[in-house]
Amino acid sequence: MSFDVDKVRADFPILSRQVNGRPLVYLDSGASSQKPQQVIEAVTRAYASEYANVHRGLHFLSNLATENYERVRAIIARFLNAPHEDEVIFTSGATEGINLVSYAWAAPRLQAGDEIVLSVLEHHANIVPWHFLRERQGVVLKWVEPEPDGSLPPEKLLAAVGPKTKLIAVTHMSNVTGTVVDVAAIARGTDVPVLVDGSQGAVHMPVDVAALGVDFYSITGHKLYGPSGSGAIWISRERQAQMRPFMGGGDMIRTVSRDTVDYADPPLRFEAGTPGIVNQIGLGVALDYLMELGMENVAAHERDIRDYARDRLRSLNWISVQGDAADKGAIFSLTMQGAHAHDISTILDKRGIAVRAGTHCAMPLLDFFGVSATARASFAMYNTRAEVDALIDGLTFCRELFA
Amino acid sequence: MSFDVDKVRADFPILSRQVNGRPLVYLDSGASSQKPQQVIEAVTRAYASEYANVHRGLHFLSNLATENYERVRAIIARFLNAPHEDEVIFTSGATEGINLVSYAWAAPRLQAGDEIVLSVLEHHANIVPWHFLRERQGVVLKWVEPEPDGSLPPEKLLAAVGPKTKLIAVTHMSNVTGTVVDVAAIARGTDVPVLVDGSQGAVHMPVDVAALGVDFYSITGHKLYGPSGSGAIWISRERQAQMRPFMGGGDMIRTVSRDTVDYADPPLRFEAGTPGIVNQIGLGVALDYLMELGMENVAAHERDIRDYARDRLRSLNWISVQGDAADKGAIFSLTMQGAHAHDISTILDKRGIAVRAGTHCAMPLLDFFGVSATARASFAMYNTRAEVDALIDGLTFCRELFA
Repeated sequence: MSFDVDKVRADFPILSRQVNGRPLVYLDSGASSQKPQQVIEAVTRAYASEYANVHRGLHFLSNLATENYERVRAIIARFLNAPHEDEVIFTSGATEGINLVSYAWAAPRLQAGDEIVLSVLEHHANIVPWHFLRERQGVVLKWVEPEPDGSLPPEKLLAAVGPKTKLIAVTHMSNVTGTVVDVAAIARGTDVPVLVDGSQGAVHMPVDVAALGVDFYSITGHKLYGPSGSGAIWISRERQAQMRPFMGGGDMIRTVSRDTVDYADPPLRFEAGTPGIVNQIGLGVALDYLMELGMENVAAHERDIRDYARDRLRSLNWISVQGDAADKGAIFSLTMQGAHAHDISTILDKRGIAVRAGTHCAMPLLDFFGVSATARASFAMYNTRAEVDALIDGLTFCRELFA
Repeated sequence: MSFDVDKVRADFPILSRQVNGRPLVYLDSGASSQKPQQVIEAVTRAYASEYANVHRGLHFLSNLATENYERVRAIIARFLNAPHEDEVIFTSGATEGINLVSYAWAAPRLQAGDEIVLSVLEHHANIVPWHFLRERQGVVLKWVEPEPDGSLPPEKLLAAVGPKTKLIAVTHMSNVTGTVVDVAAIARGTDVPVLVDGSQGAVHMPVDVAALGVDFYSITGHKLYGPSGSGAIWISRERQAQMRPFMGGGDMIRTVSRDTVDYADPPLRFEAGTPGIVNQIGLGVALDYLMELGMENVAAHERDIRDYARDRLRSLNWISVQGDAADKGAIFSLTMQGAHAHDISTILDKRGIAVRAGTHCAMPLLDFFGVSATARASFAMYNTRAEVDALIDGLTFCRELFA
């Protein structure tokens, strides 16, 4: 395998730091990933020597910043295999992307009684914008439960689609269980538009929106090894044409008068105000970094970590893994009889191991599993088998404390 | 005066670079300002050694990032003299802040025929969100023109307020003319809620939202010497209580089930998803930097630059300054008979002087002045009299080319 995890780790400065006197074992990439030196340096360079506002300038620095910034659209298009660059809309993250669809596409189209089908696996970012439509205009949310193992058969979701279904909103990979959803099969099985929350999926698998056949695919930069406040949503031209503007301001208009406003063409129509210029420039570097490694290689490395972690966790009969589907990413939501998830996280932290405890912004899914919180170990491309061992040792130590 | 512009300049690495073989003369801070080393270093440090997602973690890095991030709320509150820290809502910039008010406060409250009073000085960020309400629900926009010199007497704006007026939306400082609007006098003269676009005002003057007596005050970090995608809006508790959520997602909820959603208290209620963590941390450093200099000192330095530039520009009878009010910031929108603004900008750029040409996202104001574009020189705290001289020399060179 051409993927060299030690070489990758060396690019991430934070991974060589200590926490509580121990080497950091960062198993919280599901919440946000760390940044390679290449991204940090790009951000520094942008601010220190290449900064100005974009689009509306004519001077050297403005042209340079515009070029560096707009180039990222093509990088994202390549990363997602988007048919057209103008289908990439910059956002501050997946949440803004999904809200864009809710406000700009769904709100003006859906009537009371219309249905949105969504899975119980969803993150609140792919739930609350639809609750708004329920609260404000009587849209009906139709929930599809996963199997007890956390998997979500496409046919089960498709069975919930009826004549009143106007949208399917589904994750590509659960941030709690790592469940991979076969969104291509879902899209093939219906004419209803499909929105995919790619917050996790795009980080851990190659994504080809053209092959998936979906309509909306939202990604978030801070999980993709990119800066805070970066991100994008891919929206097919067909769906863009059905959308009204979301936020109003500079850059998204052609002309403004006292009585009229004429909107710019997409994608600018959906990008109001001074954007996250340097954040997006950093995201471009992060995605170039991933594409240079090769997402197939990243995925293969993470499958190895997943299989190793799964085997080792299965050997601990006092640990439950919530939703351990066969096809899943390297994300494990753990519960232990007699120990609260928060205690597990706190004890692991003393050993330098960062895991997250709580509901992971996915309360309906935790309700489904009948647990109030889990301790989640979420692995990324820079994690190693040795870090899995450290987690197992840490959990064993917890078990001894609470037994 | 305790303000040492050379010392300030030394903190901004980009100001020592060359453009087109000449030292950079950056007169485009109205579009976006440059960043001091302190901000750049804070961003680097955050990514390189102190990064994790905020709020939902329990491990060391998450607690550290949360502390660094949440501390900024208090810094912004101090910067604006906000009565309560929870009145500060983080945004990605002024545009998002104003859209938040439009969607969360105005849209559910205003009926067809209700009026919003706004000035012709406004930036599109403080126009287009209100056009949405006109287009979508029949709200009436009532426009108040400035005087020919660009000034806006408070009583003129107040004269447009009637029984159907539900909101006044007005800038604190025009980004085209530098006009300072006496928003305190406006707020004193009416009970109608006042939204202030502080994108420019907060950068160039001390701001005290408590003393101003307004309801909403939006700022943007990238103009305040802070990172891309940072910002905030101050909203009084009274108005917050009248707002529904805007974007839905993580962090803005207390509980989510399949059938219900219970929202978090403000300010989190209005902050969905993973925020611009590192961007806001950088903004905090930028505001600390400004407060250490003292906004009174910054304003005094910029008044000196303004007066010097005004005098020198007045000596050129072939240059028109659009809207040169007495009380204004150091922003000059220039037109020259026989030379297009774009040509002026391009020629100045060859001499290393960055000015912006166009409509500056303020088309109604340019219509009012009867010009299609201006070349705008916008000064900031790091600019000098010598840079004014460079601008004058450059304009003189343009004049010779086009005469």
